[in-house]
Amino acid sequence: MKVKLTKVPGSITVPRGFRASGVFCDIKRLGTGKGSEKGNKRDLALIVSDVPSTVAGMFTTNQICAAPVKLCLERVKKGTAQAVVVNSGNANACTGPQGMKDALAMARFTEQTLNIPGGSALVGSTGRIGIVLPMDNVRTGIIEAAVELGSSERHAAHVAEAIMTSDTRAKGIAVELRLAGTPVRIGGICKGAGMIQPGMSRTAKRPVARPLHATMLCFITTDIAIDRGLLQLALEEAVAKSFNCITVDGDMSTNDTVLVLANGQAGPKSKVKSQKSKEFQAFQAGLDFVCLELAKMIVRDGEGVSRFVTVRVEGARNAADADAAARAVANSALVKTSWHGGDPNWGRIIDALGYSAAKIIEEKVDIGYSGPRSQRILWSLRRGQPTNATFRQLCAAVAPKEFDLHIHLNLGKARAIIYAADLTEEYVEFNKGDVSDPGSLGG
Amino acid sequence: MKVKLTKVPGSITVPRGFRASGVFCDIKRLGTGKGSEKGNKRDLALIVSDVPSTVAGMFTTNQICAAPVKLCLERVKKGTAQAVVVNSGNANACTGPQGMKDALAMARFTEQTLNIPGGSALVGSTGRIGIVLPMDNVRTGIIEAAVELGSSERHAAHVAEAIMTSDTRAKGIAVELRLAGTPVRIGGICKGAGMIQPGMSRTAKRPVARPLHATMLCFITTDIAIDRGLLQLALEEAVAKSFNCITVDGDMSTNDTVLVLANGQAGPKSKVKSQKSKEFQAFQAGLDFVCLELAKMIVRDGEGVSRFVTVRVEGARNAADADAAARAVANSALVKTSWHGGDPNWGRIIDALGYSAAKIIEEKVDIGYSGPRSQRILWSLRRGQPTNATFRQLCAAVAPKEFDLHIHLNLGKARAIIYAADLTEEYVEFNKGDVSDPGSLGG
Repeated sequence: MKVKLTKVPGSITVPRGFRASGVFCDIKRLGTGKGSEKGNKRDLALIVSDVPSTVAGMFTTNQICAAPVKLCLERVKKGTAQAVVVNSGNANACTGPQGMKDALAMARFTEQTLNIPGGSALVGSTGRIGIVLPMDNVRTGIIEAAVELGSSERHAAHVAEAIMTSDTRAKGIAVELRLAGTPVRIGGICKGAGMIQPGMSRTAKRPVARPLHATMLCFITTDIAIDRGLLQLALEEAVAKSFNCITVDGDMSTNDTVLVLANGQAGPKSKVKSQKSKEFQAFQAGLDFVCLELAKMIVRDGEGVSRFVTVRVEGARNAADADAAARAVANSALVKTSWHGGDPNWGRIIDALGYSAAKIIEEKVDIGYSGPRSQRILWSLRRGQPTNATFRQLCAAVAPKEFDLHIHLNLGKARAIIYAADLTEEYVEFNKGDVSDPGSLGG
Repeated sequence: MKVKLTKVPGSITVPRGFRASGVFCDIKRLGTGKGSEKGNKRDLALIVSDVPSTVAGMFTTNQICAAPVKLCLERVKKGTAQAVVVNSGNANACTGPQGMKDALAMARFTEQTLNIPGGSALVGSTGRIGIVLPMDNVRTGIIEAAVELGSSERHAAHVAEAIMTSDTRAKGIAVELRLAGTPVRIGGICKGAGMIQPGMSRTAKRPVARPLHATMLCFITTDIAIDRGLLQLALEEAVAKSFNCITVDGDMSTNDTVLVLANGQAGPKSKVKSQKSKEFQAFQAGLDFVCLELAKMIVRDGEGVSRFVTVRVEGARNAADADAAARAVANSALVKTSWHGGDPNWGRIIDALGYSAAKIIEEKVDIGYSGPRSQRILWSLRRGQPTNATFRQLCAAVAPKEFDLHIHLNLGKARAIIYAADLTEEYVEFNKGDVSDPGSLGG
């Protein structure tokens, strides 16, 4: 089914009936009164629907999971929510019973301040691990954010800014589609940068053969009318093909969270009746697009990233093999540094394939390159043997900031795509930390 | 059993009846006539026993394995060998049928030149992947090396130099022990640097729960009299606790090889009769020591390495969990960069534990540090909660060039040790490659 999606300016306040705001409340207690060290960055945000919404979520499968994730896991099960409160600068992870109390207190204070039903606020946190939240600052922030709420593009941009940590750019998108003549909108924002290889599920339990690895946070709003079950199905499908297919550094965070709120304000004609309906498929296409575009923004803005590589594995025996092969290549330190250097080093690629959990036969492996929107593949290896492509040609293929790496295992029909980044001196420089800063523990 | 081991100067020519040599034959065909770009480095070596020896080997479990590995796999099965020919600068990996012909030709030319029995020469290669060996240079090298053979410390040092690739130092060791009054010697050399996380087995088939990941080459000589079966048992035990417990960058090479030749020249009194004998246990202790010291040298001299960290996991449910937990930490880009920065970031450590395949319960995890030879652990986390240790104290604990990281999962009795390295800007700088060098493909 061909679905017409129209990109529209703005993000989470594009769908009807949503308001948002982002403020600075000094979560890191820098005491400078002028934002974080990264500039005048906001650090607390609210996303609020005018009416109770259906909600769906996907969460980190890291066994060490932050208090806000535990809270969301419980609350998303109920299927309805009306607000999200989110902070950056502190992950509220590994904070013990106090962390759970604080996450709950954040939710309750939001509900009271906004005068919405008990249990209808969700919580997200990202930043340092192992430090207790400064709850006075949080409460001040929630009050200020509640005052600031609005539906303009600027309001949404403030939220996208407030959830940033080491991100260099705010990330947001919105699309519009038509269901039975009614315009339906989907908007989203996200943050990423480091500790990025999400492997999220609805229950925080690892699905079979699910790879294991950001703090990435993503909040999606839509005005479609949809049941929570169908919304969850659509989100799982969209996340499986987007956020769960990206890697910056192979580390999975304690806080990864994707939440989608659907408030039905597009009207009853937008109602999705079943998974087989045209409406569901159209919504799925829209949600897929929003999630994939946001996921790619995370990789492009990963810490120190200079190249964006789409690793396309085809011909694997099965889906688990395809995924394992793509991730072994996408997370190999030697492959990633060669991408950084613009070096078409197929030796490192086939080495990584060889030690992956996927079945590989050397004499069957093809490795090649194309531009991101090109079907023409320049092969460097066919059936395990170097082609006639010259070193100069191969260098030209991997010189662009973005290219696709094609790996055909020629053993079956399964395929996988992983959106990956190079490994740079800047990544190391950034992450080796600043030991003059005693609060630098964390995600 | 307490075994007295005496370190003695020299390496592979310390045991009686072994001769060695290393020469430059321009394997990379630089045509400069003055050694490799890394200086006047030799690039081809011979190790020869005066008499046929029993032999044992362990090899990469990468599914893409080099021609010399395939050849050794076949020849080691026979249990006897008399010489090893080894080159650096070219891995003879992914070179197809020509590669197998060349490996075999290297072996045969060595046998003819040395006038030793057919099938008694083994082959090792390390360097670039996917380039066919320059066999004329190889033959010239073998002839020159045969002329140069000798038993001095200098001769052994030439071999240690000839097998180096990105290594900055030659690596060798020798020990002496006494069996029934008879002195027995064990000598070894090795090389490593990058693509280092070996997971070797005797058959190149992955054992269950065997981690998957250098070119590392190691050649060990001994004058003990021992059957091939007992020699293989001893080597497997020694490698499991040494080379298979190191990681520099988490990439497993196509060429990892450990070979040990035992020529019996210590005399019949040195004969090892059974696995239960005192002699076997004494030899095992000696071989363990040689392998572990060589393995640690590889990590310390890994590409760009500035810190050597011994990751000690205790209290895991089972051995596979202990190994998985230790490797997740040892290979996490975020943990490794924090080590580089001297940052005691336990948040990243517990994050990596949480996404490992090992069972972890946040509220049970202890994380602490000690000096390499100290029993006193400074805990940063006990039962999932930060201790009273100050940030300054923790920084001091991770400031030395070498320290031990202690992780107690408190879920069982299994333990694992992984010898690991930090991730530095120098590693990235070195490995991003030099695309002005069209031969830079490879391991």
